[in-house]
Amino acid sequence: MTQKPLIFVTNDDGITAPGIRALIEVMNELGEVIVVTPDRVHSGKGHAVTIHNPLHLDPIKIDEGPQKEFKTNGMPVDAVKLGLAHATDRKPDLLVSGLNHGVNNSINVLYSGTMGAAIEGAIEGIPSIGFSLDNYDWNADLEPAKHYMKKIARQVLEKGMPQGVALNVNIPNLPLSEIKGVKVARQAMDKWHETYDKRTNPFGRDYYWLNGNFSYEDKGKDTDVYALKNGYVSVVPVQFDLTAHRLIKDLKDLES
Amino acid sequence: MTQKPLIFVTNDDGITAPGIRALIEVMNELGEVIVVTPDRVHSGKGHAVTIHNPLHLDPIKIDEGPQKEFKTNGMPVDAVKLGLAHATDRKPDLLVSGLNHGVNNSINVLYSGTMGAAIEGAIEGIPSIGFSLDNYDWNADLEPAKHYMKKIARQVLEKGMPQGVALNVNIPNLPLSEIKGVKVARQAMDKWHETYDKRTNPFGRDYYWLNGNFSYEDKGKDTDVYALKNGYVSVVPVQFDLTAHRLIKDLKDLES
Repeated sequence: MTQKPLIFVTNDDGITAPGIRALIEVMNELGEVIVVTPDRVHSGKGHAVTIHNPLHLDPIKIDEGPQKEFKTNGMPVDAVKLGLAHATDRKPDLLVSGLNHGVNNSINVLYSGTMGAAIEGAIEGIPSIGFSLDNYDWNADLEPAKHYMKKIARQVLEKGMPQGVALNVNIPNLPLSEIKGVKVARQAMDKWHETYDKRTNPFGRDYYWLNGNFSYEDKGKDTDVYALKNGYVSVVPVQFDLTAHRLIKDLKDLES
Repeated sequence: MTQKPLIFVTNDDGITAPGIRALIEVMNELGEVIVVTPDRVHSGKGHAVTIHNPLHLDPIKIDEGPQKEFKTNGMPVDAVKLGLAHATDRKPDLLVSGLNHGVNNSINVLYSGTMGAAIEGAIEGIPSIGFSLDNYDWNADLEPAKHYMKKIARQVLEKGMPQGVALNVNIPNLPLSEIKGVKVARQAMDKWHETYDKRTNPFGRDYYWLNGNFSYEDKGKDTDVYALKNGYVSVVPVQFDLTAHRLIKDLKDLES
């Protein structure tokens, strides 16, 4: 008898987020599921890792599914590192992160804990996918996302994935019947314009909340932003070799 | 009269670290210096950003230099975002991050707060450099690093830098006379093998400390690791477009 594929599930919204519960439900149909995820929301933690503090890894039972679950006080990348080291004896066949409550397209991939975890999976040599929904509401309809998470995860389990990349999958906030399909795209080169909101606390001390507008500067039609706006699920292959290879030659002057 | 170049200085080891004090000292020779940096050590925070908590930005005076200094309770990327928004009226001509106490070559660039800050500078369109020393000791000899930080920063101020990248500069732990020069290199594709150290706390609960061995798997002679091992300062151009462009075509099957 063939062993079922082992699927490692994590996220950055914490173990009780509706997004990860939906992802677990779908992955239970495709394989044996192990869940290791932060015990709380860790939005914006990118590829951060805990070095100077001790981490916990506690078994937990949230619902009646067959999955094994653990929570940790660490961040998303910690959940992957610690989970692979101490929550499973065999290497997963697939790592999935999400479903994030909020879009992670364009430059947001850098700040995203959902994608930090997926990239960490890729570094470990595991085919890895981050899933995000273009809706921040925890009461959003997750059914269309479930359809596409299952479809893409099954394709990756069957056909494998190139080494050195994770997939960044963003799902539009549309009913299933209005989603036009999947587009493989590049990361749009947009940016945030930060406008910190300055306030004064009850003790007279100033403080700042991060705020800002997202500026759509990349007008390309081959981007993840364009695909999403036009009703497609966007898939970007994201690499962890950050070298701008084309510039190595141009910068040789620095050697003099 | 020409205005002096404005140099924004930050780090991930906190405002009192010897590494940033050395960097400030050298930058004071090249321009007008503004320092905005975390109030404590934030190693391993990568590109993490604070979303759900308020941030402070407090003027502080550490030494007698001419620089203006601020500390924040945020992480390195927060220091850049908040500093650019509220600590200066003009756009810096250069952003420098470091000098980090510890090497940030190879895959470590992903976890590095030093480089997270530099990459954030590059996203903001500022020529940006992260400097790290291959020595974790706060009592290390910083003189050789000072020489190369000044040399490279001056070159970038004079000649500019391509858009879309930050420089990841690592300095070997050698006397100045033994450093052979500068090599522009690619990020080595090595990895960490994590071995979390499992212990039990005084209350009987298990906890884990991140530990591990760095595995030199990339045998290339054009890497940052190779350059450093052979006595060179390594410079890698690091980009924030994470798209693996060459794979977009290969993944078109996912659209079916």
